[in-house]
Amino acid sequence: MSGSWELVHFPIVSDRRGNLTFIEGGSTIPFDINRVYYLYDVPGGAHRGGHAHKELHQVVIAVSGSFDIHLNDGRRQQTVTLNRSYYGLYMRNMVWRELHNFSSGACCVVLASHHYDEADYIRDLDEFLFKATGERPE
Amino acid sequence: MSGSWELVHFPIVSDRRGNLTFIEGGSTIPFDINRVYYLYDVPGGAHRGGHAHKELHQVVIAVSGSFDIHLNDGRRQQTVTLNRSYYGLYMRNMVWRELHNFSSGACCVVLASHHYDEADYIRDLDEFLFKATGERPE
Repeated sequence: MSGSWELVHFPIVSDRRGNLTFIEGGSTIPFDINRVYYLYDVPGGAHRGGHAHKELHQVVIAVSGSFDIHLNDGRRQQTVTLNRSYYGLYMRNMVWRELHNFSSGACCVVLASHHYDEADYIRDLDEFLFKATGERPE
Repeated sequence: MSGSWELVHFPIVSDRRGNLTFIEGGSTIPFDINRVYYLYDVPGGAHRGGHAHKELHQVVIAVSGSFDIHLNDGRRQQTVTLNRSYYGLYMRNMVWRELHNFSSGACCVVLASHHYDEADYIRDLDEFLFKATGERPE
């Protein structure tokens, strides 16, 4: 995987009883899965996120419903729509992300490379842009 | 955690933008998360499962919708309904499980202690009962 983020098509085991997708740490994705968290009961249209991680890598999956992720690594910005259970958005560290446009009933599952550590979060966009680019925002 | 299975109430971080539940390997649950898989696009009322694992432990979560799990360790049987995103069913190894009564739109996320290994599966109920109890079924 190259770049700060990448959309990954995970394997699908499909039969008439439904679909199964699997992800193995250190194999399907390039990091060990130390933390899993998920967002649910999100009001339709809600907005979340607005942070970056200094070290943590993660994969974000819309297992139900859909939402958009706006991504910014200080050099490139992109908005990705996640709306299929078998796609995951792999994000390296140092990516500012905001989640928005949740569909009603959406569930967002995140697989993360590290346990929770508040010191790993960057919650201020200007601080993030300075760290990412070495330049003070105007 | 004692017994072959246990319903676990995971942490909830709740605010007006929705709820977040997190699970950390070796901390919130007593094993490292080596594999994550999930079932989706399951037809309402479908039935899945019918196997046990020799070594693998796992946690099963209904992140969306609901389904029932019938559990059998050779000594005790129970049917558990999963219908809240913040509950997980922790299952040790050597538990025969069958998933049924899926609601339309349900999503079942499973966190597993090992990568996939076909040799770890027991797919025949009589074989399982013999291994679990040491007695040949009548």
